Amino acid sequence: MSGELIYGIHAIEAALTHDPGNILELYFESDSHNARLKELSDHAREAGLKPHARDKAALDKMTGGARHQGAVARYRTPPPRSESELAALVEKAGAEALLLVLDGVTDPHNLGACLRSAEAAGVTAVVVPKDKAAGITPTVRKASAGAADRIAFFAVTNLARTLKTLKQQGVWLAGLAGDVPQVFYSLDLKGPLAIVMGSEGEGMRRLTRESCDFLAKIPMRGSVESLNVSVATGVVLFEALRQRGKKS
Amino acid sequence: MSGELIYGIHAIEAALTHDPGNILELYFESDSHNARLKELSDHAREAGLKPHARDKAALDKMTGGARHQGAVARYRTPPPRSESELAALVEKAGAEALLLVLDGVTDPHNLGACLRSAEAAGVTAVVVPKDKAAGITPTVRKASAGAADRIAFFAVTNLARTLKTLKQQGVWLAGLAGDVPQVFYSLDLKGPLAIVMGSEGEGMRRLTRESCDFLAKIPMRGSVESLNVSVATGVVLFEALRQRGKKS
Repeated sequence: MSGELIYGIHAIEAALTHDPGNILELYFESDSHNARLKELSDHAREAGLKPHARDKAALDKMTGGARHQGAVARYRTPPPRSESELAALVEKAGAEALLLVLDGVTDPHNLGACLRSAEAAGVTAVVVPKDKAAGITPTVRKASAGAADRIAFFAVTNLARTLKTLKQQGVWLAGLAGDVPQVFYSLDLKGPLAIVMGSEGEGMRRLTRESCDFLAKIPMRGSVESLNVSVATGVVLFEALRQRGKKS
Repeated sequence: MSGELIYGIHAIEAALTHDPGNILELYFESDSHNARLKELSDHAREAGLKPHARDKAALDKMTGGARHQGAVARYRTPPPRSESELAALVEKAGAEALLLVLDGVTDPHNLGACLRSAEAAGVTAVVVPKDKAAGITPTVRKASAGAADRIAFFAVTNLARTLKTLKQQGVWLAGLAGDVPQVFYSLDLKGPLAIVMGSEGEGMRRLTRESCDFLAKIPMRGSVESLNVSVATGVVLFEALRQRGKKS
């Protein structure tokens, strides 16, 4: 069966509201008395979808026992791209290559906003680790203002290995970190470059951090210690663009 | 009675989860059979709050007939600040004055993220029009990572008049717009400055736009025509900081 499973009343409601065209199948618990499930079901029919009735045991089995609240869907996600395609894109972009690597951005609003910024900045590709990041869900698609479907998005199995391959292709890796003296603006951001961002709470994982050629921070003045990850991503992407737009 | 009314199951749930300490009073519909209201009520008691029972007519009256879904609260918002306080802050900051003006940012996540960035950038004050912007709700507070309670936030009655006063104090107004040739990076962002942002969909209102000394854009490369407003705010605030950090 194709598509990705999504579940939970909130997730299904988001898909029905923002992206019904990508719902492949919809399953509602047949023996539930939850009023919100009834509302969802009406909503689905208004969107032209015919939900299947399943008992709780069947839904439990589909979701591997996750908390589905009686609502499950198969959702069409963009087809996965291979790492050889990534290598080809980087090769083709040459000195213009600009990648965004997100190591562990799990909030779908943040991922969506990052994709939107990346697309606006004209990046070559966005790379995330398959297991540690949010996938392209309806919430991500919405927050991306459509960029999720247009950008070259790679969910890779082994991020450290992918970063190594990028380096072998001549891409410089610049990681954003809060705890280093170097200021991001002092880096030379021209030429083939990947900007590497960590997760909001944890930063980059150790192996990712050690893969970077440079680590630098956005200098701050207030008592807030960090920016929202999608804001920080925008700041560094557009700083790269500013530098790259100048005659060197 | 002090505090601001907030209502609706989602808003009250957010307040109970993220900011129960600022809920002054809580009112639930006494004759409702909504299971979510029962859950909210349990949640409130766990948070140490004692909800008052009111019939639907009483809640309708409190909210002026708004869609309250049986859940209403009085919520403590930061005390409003006077415009004379704004003038004093600008005066005191002198050439270092850096203000953020948000004309019509209505999404609470976006407002919160803007406040977080503004605080991290060390801005002197954030100014919004009282009637056209989101207030400091629990969702805003959460998205701001605490910045909402620390930043000098001014909700003003007449934004055009406030902008005029700022200009009389020697503050330059730089507005971000998508439809102008000037590039933001080419502006001189040193000295007393207010960065003016419009709403996501509509941009600035006409009077606000006409108040600006400069209008400029963030140059983009992709097919997305705009950035998320909180990302765009971060990009321009930190570009200002970058310029101001350099020796002139």
